[in-house]
Amino acid sequence: MIDLTKNLATMNRRTKSSVIRELLKLTNRPEIISFAGGLPNPGAFPTEHMADIALKVIKENAREAFQYGSTEGLPVLKDQIVKMLKEDEGIDAGHQNILIVTASQQGLDLVGRTFVDPSDPIIVELPSYIGGLQVFGSYGARMIGVHADDDGMRMDELEKKLEILRNEEEHYKFIYLVPDFQNPSGVTMSLERRQKLVDLSREFNVLLIEDSPYRQIRFEGKAPPMLYKLDKENNVISLFTFSKTLVPGFRLGFVVAHESIIKKFTVLKQSIDLCTSPMNQLFAAEFMKQGLFKEHLPKIVNMYRAKKDLMISALERYMPAGEGISWTKPEGGLFLWLRLPEYMSADAMFKDAISKNVAYVVGSAFHCDGSGQNTARLNFSYSSDEQIEEGIRRLASVVKDNLKKR
Amino acid sequence: MIDLTKNLATMNRRTKSSVIRELLKLTNRPEIISFAGGLPNPGAFPTEHMADIALKVIKENAREAFQYGSTEGLPVLKDQIVKMLKEDEGIDAGHQNILIVTASQQGLDLVGRTFVDPSDPIIVELPSYIGGLQVFGSYGARMIGVHADDDGMRMDELEKKLEILRNEEEHYKFIYLVPDFQNPSGVTMSLERRQKLVDLSREFNVLLIEDSPYRQIRFEGKAPPMLYKLDKENNVISLFTFSKTLVPGFRLGFVVAHESIIKKFTVLKQSIDLCTSPMNQLFAAEFMKQGLFKEHLPKIVNMYRAKKDLMISALERYMPAGEGISWTKPEGGLFLWLRLPEYMSADAMFKDAISKNVAYVVGSAFHCDGSGQNTARLNFSYSSDEQIEEGIRRLASVVKDNLKKR
Repeated sequence: MIDLTKNLATMNRRTKSSVIRELLKLTNRPEIISFAGGLPNPGAFPTEHMADIALKVIKENAREAFQYGSTEGLPVLKDQIVKMLKEDEGIDAGHQNILIVTASQQGLDLVGRTFVDPSDPIIVELPSYIGGLQVFGSYGARMIGVHADDDGMRMDELEKKLEILRNEEEHYKFIYLVPDFQNPSGVTMSLERRQKLVDLSREFNVLLIEDSPYRQIRFEGKAPPMLYKLDKENNVISLFTFSKTLVPGFRLGFVVAHESIIKKFTVLKQSIDLCTSPMNQLFAAEFMKQGLFKEHLPKIVNMYRAKKDLMISALERYMPAGEGISWTKPEGGLFLWLRLPEYMSADAMFKDAISKNVAYVVGSAFHCDGSGQNTARLNFSYSSDEQIEEGIRRLASVVKDNLKKR
Repeated sequence: MIDLTKNLATMNRRTKSSVIRELLKLTNRPEIISFAGGLPNPGAFPTEHMADIALKVIKENAREAFQYGSTEGLPVLKDQIVKMLKEDEGIDAGHQNILIVTASQQGLDLVGRTFVDPSDPIIVELPSYIGGLQVFGSYGARMIGVHADDDGMRMDELEKKLEILRNEEEHYKFIYLVPDFQNPSGVTMSLERRQKLVDLSREFNVLLIEDSPYRQIRFEGKAPPMLYKLDKENNVISLFTFSKTLVPGFRLGFVVAHESIIKKFTVLKQSIDLCTSPMNQLFAAEFMKQGLFKEHLPKIVNMYRAKKDLMISALERYMPAGEGISWTKPEGGLFLWLRLPEYMSADAMFKDAISKNVAYVVGSAFHCDGSGQNTARLNFSYSSDEQIEEGIRRLASVVKDNLKKR
């Protein structure tokens, strides 16, 4: 065979297997209670309804379901999305503003492919979604991290970094954020910061990539408007997925943006995978059309709220108090964020956790600058109630052992 | 909005909408008989069986079908593929040699992403599959065309071009071919040339990308072995799809290659779309497991053979004889290739064809050097028998008119 060390393209060499992926392999043993994944709960899958819908779509519309579809996506699904965006978000979008994608990871890839040349600086949150960091990194992006607190990305720090980039005449193009129930931190960006962010986007002429996989899974409180809604300059590209609200197995999501950006993305998507499965699009469209999606969402919300409450209650009961340990209290989504005392390392503690049969994702994996060693991401959507209780008990005992070592 | 003319990445600027895509828009009028597409015939979709299978998979295995799957692909589908490769091709492959992809366009994208740096020369056929040219072009490949005749790519010309590249110390990495019932030409590479090609691949230390979407649709004659089978150096990467043999709507294909290449592709796929739809993988696996795929293939073969015969018979009856007009007689696949006299331009003739309500794809679109103006691709899989007869009658009349103009 040809020598791969001499023949791989730069892009390949820049793309590294995610740390999460390697860690997850360790957590596959059945005796381990894993809060490391990010999977929806299978109990949240609308199996019965979907069996009926699959049968109906295949029997009545096999010619469309089984054939190639347009790269842009099927109009019947776009109709449903337009309606949902209007009703839920007050967003006026037309078909020309929507591209159906093979789940939102493809949306992230399209963003990288469209806007990132090697060494282009992009701005990301500290911490940030690892799948975004990975794909932007594969295109050679230079990541500039801006810290986030319990109200989301800090705007004072962002403004300073944008000023530096502007003064350096750097070719910055976008700011990447998950504004709602962020992965990994569970934090939601406040309305005030959203408004400031949109102002900065206009002032510095920079796109905002609003990655929004969890927004529809809100447990409590009032949702601040989407960045897409607040922006008046067509500077926002919003990425959505059906993976958390319906099923990941369809590999189905959509991008909402200005028509000129959707056109660019469409040409790229043509060379990437021609089109997203029309069958899977028709399944989702029919589910929405029959009103089942609206009925289904509250079930997921209730299930995950209960699991979040359970995890927080267990943390309150088991974690050592008064030791500088804290966690976020997410208003939605799938994750919460554990902060340990500064001197502790969740990376170093990981092997202790595995030996006690509990797993998490080390927080440093989400930090483009390698910081965040004292943090960890905990997923509450996938585990059973019993596992959440027992897993947090185990984790607290690992933390206690590490406190003692001081 | 930010100014796209100043902000698009190089990769985006290199990716152009395919000529076919633009032409196809012209051919959507219902009065036009179009031989321009490349769609399977909806009559070839196994709708009844697939409705049963969808129901069974969703009822019995929703937890796997609807969840995220591994990036590598589901073992149950790989089991079926291993068996098929062994039985049909005498190829010994293990799970580690297979990556399930979101149809073979994703396989092409992975090849480009893994091996093509801007300005790297790659060798393609004249003519060549346009989707391959487009995606390799997006990575900045410099295309070097080698002519093909009725036995496939010419090995004398290939050897000369490889020698030039070696003498120039150029970083060539692969030769891209569709060896069976090529798209666009319908030509199958002879055994002798396959053997020579594999020898050259060893001598010049260059990968062979064997794109094989049509191989299983053979009407007559004996299949020469796959390049993957002939090669002993792990120099072949073979791309397969279920789009022509089952349904395109699943967006399902697979790559067969040496384990080390599959590993590289898997890391890249993780950042591209995480995984291919597990539901769609389970549908295909169940269809194969029940023995339905083996039953189904001969139905497609018979249907397309009859359509090919019909098109050739119509060409023989309608096309002007003794004018230097010829066409390939494919032993399988979906396409045949029309060659007009050198002085004629299928590009210029296209508007006449549209005005007479018949469409084809201009041959020049498949030539990386812009040659082939006197050629055209005709698809015979999609049109009804009546449309084939009438469409060829119309096309012959357009050709006759253009002959007169000389």
